[in-house]
This record gives sequence, structure tokens and C-alpha cells, in this order.
Amino acid sequence: MIGVIATLKVQDGKGAELEAAFATLAAAVRANEPGNHAYQLCKSRTEPNTYKVLELYADEDALKAHGAADYFKAAGPALGAVLAGRPEIEYLDGV
Amino acid sequence: MIGVIATLKVQDGKGAELEAAFATLAAAVRANEPGNHAYQLCKSRTEPNTYKVLELYADEDALKAHGAADYFKAAGPALGAVLAGRPEIEYLDGV
Repeated sequence: MIGVIATLKVQDGKGAELEAAFATLAAAVRANEPGNHAYQLCKSRTEPNTYKVLELYADEDALKAHGAADYFKAAGPALGAVLAGRPEIEYLDGV
Repeated sequence: MIGVIATLKVQDGKGAELEAAFATLAAAVRANEPGNHAYQLCKSRTEPNTYKVLELYADEDALKAHGAADYFKAAGPALGAVLAGRPEIEYLDGV
């Protein structure tokens, strides 16, 4: 298992747009990636304008398939338009 | 959905003990908590002696049921004996 924590900082007032764009992406992930076991957008309770995506993948191949998917690449512009900077991605090894 | 990221710092050389104690706990969580959707121990790739648990719960009731479970309370001493400090727990609101 591989864990990912993706931290997303959104521009002021753009949270709803981020959530909508992410919902489309997450639906595609769930429909197309049997090796993905979690892909949950969460909102920080303490840091304003901050979201964290909790992700779990069966293995490196599943993680690569996610990154290579057309719908993942297609989500980039809509997400990038409302983010306040580049996502911070932390990779973790499942035990 | 509620997300939790629990950061655990383990004492030098105690990683295997932590992993064993956690495996027992995780098996009990998976067997007894229908409202738990992820409970994955992960090891940091960058920070030594650091683990993060990625957790997802259906709602606040599911999170409370987890914290109140006998096997969760029973895991405390074994985990505490090998940790280098108190766990840092971050709660997040699923979107």
C-alpha cells in the first residue's frame, strides 16, 4: 500500500470551485482505478483555505496509473485556476 | 466523512514493535467498525522514526465508536511504550 497526503491551498473565495472540480475528478478515479482504495478530499479545521486529500493505492503501479490517467491530467487546469500555489505532495509507504 | 492524520514518532529501533502492535489494532478496527473506511499505518519516506496513520470515518458517531472501543483503549500501553512522544492528531472534514 502507498499513502499520499496532498495539501492544497485555495485562493480566497474559491473553495466551492475547488470542491466541484475535485468531485468530478474523484468520481472518475473511483470509476476507473481498482488499485485506488481512498481518494478523499478533506478540509482543514484549523488552517483557512487549506484542503488535504487522503489517498491510498495498492502499489506503485496503481499510483502510476492514477498520475497517467487522462481525467487526472484534464483536471489540472480547473484545479490550478483556483489554487493559491502548487500542491504539496507527501508520499508514504504503507506498513 | 471525517479524515484523521495521526502522526506517530517512534523511539529508535522500536519500529518493528510499533508495527506489530498497530497490526493487532488495525485488524480489530477492520473487524468491528463498519463506519471506518480507512485505517492505514504508513511510514514516512523523509522523516526518520515517523509514521502517519491515514484514517477515514463515515461520521462523528463512527469516530466516537473508534475512540471508545475496548481494543483501542487496550492498544494504548503497547503503543505508548515505543512512541517517542504523544501522537499528533489532525482532524479534517471530508468534502
